[in-house]
Amino acid sequence: MEPTRLIIDCDPGVDDAFALALAMAAPEAIEILGITCVAGNRGLEHTERNTRRLCTLLGRTDIPVYRGCPRPIMFPEPTETKVHGVDGFGDVTSLPEPTFEAAPGHAVTFLIDTLMREPSGSVTVCTMGPMTNLAVAIVQEPRIVPRIKELVFMGGAAFRSARVRIADLNFYGDPHAAHIVVTAGIPQTMFGIDVTLECDLTEAEVERLEAVGSPACRILAEMFRAYAVGDRCVHDICPIAWLLDPTLFATVEGHIDVEHGSVLTRGITVARIHPRKLEGFTPNATIATEVERDRLVALLITRLAALP
Amino acid sequence: MEPTRLIIDCDPGVDDAFALALAMAAPEAIEILGITCVAGNRGLEHTERNTRRLCTLLGRTDIPVYRGCPRPIMFPEPTETKVHGVDGFGDVTSLPEPTFEAAPGHAVTFLIDTLMREPSGSVTVCTMGPMTNLAVAIVQEPRIVPRIKELVFMGGAAFRSARVRIADLNFYGDPHAAHIVVTAGIPQTMFGIDVTLECDLTEAEVERLEAVGSPACRILAEMFRAYAVGDRCVHDICPIAWLLDPTLFATVEGHIDVEHGSVLTRGITVARIHPRKLEGFTPNATIATEVERDRLVALLITRLAALP
Amino acid sequence: MEPTRLIIDCDPGVDDAFALALAMAAPEAIEILGITCVAGNRGLEHTERNTRRLCTLLGRTDIPVYRGCPRPIMFPEPTETKVHGVDGFGDVTSLPEPTFEAAPGHAVTFLIDTLMREPSGSVTVCTMGPMTNLAVAIVQEPRIVPRIKELVFMGGAAFRSARVRIADLNFYGDPHAAHIVVTAGIPQTMFGIDVTLECDLTEAEVERLEAVGSPACRILAEMFRAYAVGDRCVHDICPIAWLLDPTLFATVEGHIDVEHGSVLTRGITVARIHPRKLEGFTPNATIATEVERDRLVALLITRLAALP
Amino acid sequence: MEPTRLIIDCDPGVDDAFALALAMAAPEAIEILGITCVAGNRGLEHTERNTRRLCTLLGRTDIPVYRGCPRPIMFPEPTETKVHGVDGFGDVTSLPEPTFEAAPGHAVTFLIDTLMREPSGSVTVCTMGPMTNLAVAIVQEPRIVPRIKELVFMGGAAFRSARVRIADLNFYGDPHAAHIVVTAGIPQTMFGIDVTLECDLTEAEVERLEAVGSPACRILAEMFRAYAVGDRCVHDICPIAWLLDPTLFATVEGHIDVEHGSVLTRGITVARIHPRKLEGFTPNATIATEVERDRLVALLITRLAALP
Ligand SMILES: [Ca+2]
Ligand SMILES: [Ca+2]
Ligand SMILES: [Ca+2]
Ligand SMILES: [Ca+2]
Repeated sequence: MEPTRLIIDCDPGVDDAFALALAMAAPEAIEILGITCVAGNRGLEHTERNTRRLCTLLGRTDIPVYRGCPRPIMFPEPTETKVHGVDGFGDVTSLPEPTFEAAPGHAVTFLIDTLMREPSGSVTVCTMGPMTNLAVAIVQEPRIVPRIKELVFMGGAAFRSARVRIADLNFYGDPHAAHIVVTAGIPQTMFGIDVTLECDLTEAEVERLEAVGSPACRILAEMFRAYAVGDRCVHDICPIAWLLDPTLFATVEGHIDVEHGSVLTRGITVARIHPRKLEGFTPNATIATEVERDRLVALLITRLAALP
Repeated sequence: MEPTRLIIDCDPGVDDAFALALAMAAPEAIEILGITCVAGNRGLEHTERNTRRLCTLLGRTDIPVYRGCPRPIMFPEPTETKVHGVDGFGDVTSLPEPTFEAAPGHAVTFLIDTLMREPSGSVTVCTMGPMTNLAVAIVQEPRIVPRIKELVFMGGAAFRSARVRIADLNFYGDPHAAHIVVTAGIPQTMFGIDVTLECDLTEAEVERLEAVGSPACRILAEMFRAYAVGDRCVHDICPIAWLLDPTLFATVEGHIDVEHGSVLTRGITVARIHPRKLEGFTPNATIATEVERDRLVALLITRLAALP
Repeated sequence: MEPTRLIIDCDPGVDDAFALALAMAAPEAIEILGITCVAGNRGLEHTERNTRRLCTLLGRTDIPVYRGCPRPIMFPEPTETKVHGVDGFGDVTSLPEPTFEAAPGHAVTFLIDTLMREPSGSVTVCTMGPMTNLAVAIVQEPRIVPRIKELVFMGGAAFRSARVRIADLNFYGDPHAAHIVVTAGIPQTMFGIDVTLECDLTEAEVERLEAVGSPACRILAEMFRAYAVGDRCVHDICPIAWLLDPTLFATVEGHIDVEHGSVLTRGITVARIHPRKLEGFTPNATIATEVERDRLVALLITRLAALP
Repeated sequence: MEPTRLIIDCDPGVDDAFALALAMAAPEAIEILGITCVAGNRGLEHTERNTRRLCTLLGRTDIPVYRGCPRPIMFPEPTETKVHGVDGFGDVTSLPEPTFEAAPGHAVTFLIDTLMREPSGSVTVCTMGPMTNLAVAIVQEPRIVPRIKELVFMGGAAFRSARVRIADLNFYGDPHAAHIVVTAGIPQTMFGIDVTLECDLTEAEVERLEAVGSPACRILAEMFRAYAVGDRCVHDICPIAWLLDPTLFATVEGHIDVEHGSVLTRGITVARIHPRKLEGFTPNATIATEVERDRLVALLITRLAALP
């Protein structure tokens, strides 16, 4: 089978780092055309540099890394979190400095140019942060929409649980972008935080990762321990894992939209799944509902162990 | 112990009928000062007449029943449902016609007059429908707010589950009223649909109820069977059951508000419970999180069996 | 011709005082059935007491005065202004204390009871403050809507001028109430602030009023001078003057609505008048566009001069 | 004096054509760095081609013309008008076909690249259509904001008149873009539709233009006559005329914002000008309040007459 030709849009972020590493560890299945960065877990200057540091660590300085939007569409400043440390990567000093520059041109231009140039239906996009870059690309050049093979993303919460107050940070961070993207008509598969909250790593599992002994695994384990003070879930690996093995997840078809007009409910996912709720709506998303956590973590560690 | 002196505000509705019957079946614990009706499950002309039919069935024609608001605050027409039949009571013909008239005066006036006249802190209010009546009473006479001992209500969904799309029908039906009431500063206990969805009655339990053989139990069982085509949960009994035995429920303290500005997320409960989410907010509600269903149903059937 | 049978809803306010006095000065044309008070220019405790002081001054202690809503529908506290002094009446000490009590019962109940009891189409309502009372009456008892002969009101701004930023204080003060009322389907004539800003009194005119020498005219002139520090326009007289002599005003037919969902544009009047803008809308209001100021002021002074 | 180095963003549109011609007719005062097109009066395929046709007519095929955003930020389709004919240029067949291609790359990229490359403070931007292109450029690269010397634009209505219902079409067409741009902190001068409505051309003036006899003047006159069926105002010339002779306009300083959350008041300008309304706000705009129409038209015709 042909590998998935993939553009990854991310805001690393420790769980983004795990997702990027997982994607790079599966070259027979995933061909990364480029990585576009966005403000999210931390400001763009951090997320973009973090991406290049990770690529340097994993020996993938061949992948072009693009600077994207440093702010959400309708707010002048991004909403930042604290669980990823000052630099967004747990302030781990053993991670190397980047040995290459960001690619010239803007992430949005790269998205548009690549999608308009490559054969229609040949490129998949995976977003793991606020959807600003893809949304702005759609506003600039809507003809990309029918050319995208599939969108897979981490974001939203179709089925809230007691642990999720309202919105996940990707939809909350840029609710207007999320609305533009999820209602654009792209075939899409959603991995919401209600599902990704199942994807925690135990200390035993982190030790197994560390015990692999490679620089990649040691440093990822170190980053994870810094991150684990606030969160133990590697949310962003879900859409990548789905590309590698869709049997890890249960899904349903439904219609999703994102609240972007109200302050009180900013970024809430409105998911219609039951036939009665879907009256008048056509399903626009495949929505992950469950994950086989143990198999997912096994896949993650096995794959990461194969990294140099 | 003194009985709870209670005003019940409702939109019967089959589950309202079970809740009213449960309250009437516990005269040593609950003194019903009056019942105020509102448009909700069905139009006001139905909900008000249904209330008097139920009082007639149960021999409680002494309780004053008041006509309330026939529409939500900001919408000219109520949102109606279909699960309760044409008349809102499953179109059960064995239910007697009412033998008494509605009390003169408006439900809102009754609420204000009673709360201003009775000793402050002596009257509890229980709402089981859209909160229009109580909200309008607060707008007309805000001095009632500190005089209410406690508000217990069925409505909202603090913790969505896969079975709840967005909003329950009580908050959805009049989101502005719900916002006015839940943020007014009244001590309140919320029974959201995520909890009341646990309160289904099995066919075996309905048969047990029917087997009691009294007119009340036979007719309630008949109404339930008509209602069970669309819903088997007796949602509205929860706040009444809580007044009778609070140990049936687990609760947490939190801050709640209701979305009323957006069409997309109309009536959504925004609940802040975890300390991090509560920053800047003072808890304003006790929120039911779990119910011991089997004990609840046992209480219901035992109490209803004692009705004439 | 039969006099107009009128309920006046107001928030005195110095210009409300002029409007009330003008109405009382025309008993052959206007029969005041009752006056309902609302929070607006000042809190309800002031506006209600001011109304009774004015009735006392003018010897009309026979008119029932009702306490209404002390807050807007969706905000817990009213928006107050400062131009009317601490007491809302310019803190004029020569105004007598009231010699009668407020009528029992709520303004909303009075509105509903009167409109349901009197022959349909026989009662006109005039509002000069935030529309909370009438809006709440409509929510409680929508059957009053087709029974109102006509609504005349001061509020809104169909045609903004450079002197009006966004919204007048009556629509701004309770935009939800204004939306409920103006879209209810009552035949209505609107006197917006863009028109009432033409109704200033010059110092020479105030001197003419004072020179009448009666207690009413002396005290009204004194109140006006206190108010004139911030505003010289007797806005609220317009709908009363229209009832006395409609030839004072030019009008157009149009459709009006009120913004109530946005903070930024709270209370803005959206008026559709030109045929192209009215596509899909049926005109719901007669909108005053111009006033013959000199004739209006002449009418005012002549009428007030006839007061005892 | 150095000429103003200008990027013009437009949606031609007949009045845009007059504005572009006026700018090109004043090469000693205005150096056009590029023209960026946006969907507005008509779809992007029309506005972009119209721009190149006009440049061809005026012999300015040296100016790079860029395709911009074909849709507003938050709506999948643009709002189109009908006054400019099917092609947006009055369907005038004497206008030549374009003899050059659109410049490669996106209008947004051109805006960002030019503003980041040229000396900070050396480039002025003039927008005459929905502000989508500039807004998206700001989201992608906020560092352009302090580098823009000045923004001059046609859009909004700070002081509504009886002829303006709510919003002008530029703010209405993309209210989110207008909000992003006008609150970004760029020094800006606004020419709202309340002022540009003064800029009508009489038939005598059109005849004077036609009598010049040059192809440019004849064809512009012909376009104007087609447009004049629905509108006689050359709105978009105002910001260009201001760059040529600011004494044509009276202005005030104020704070402006744009409603983008409400359907009812979509695109309304909220302008705070009086000191009392400005409390808590810092003026962010120079707002045109009046135009010397006769001098403006004289300038226009004189300048256009000098075109080849
Ligand atoms: Ca991420
Ligand atoms: Ca109910
Ligand atoms: Ca008033
Ligand atoms: Ca234009």
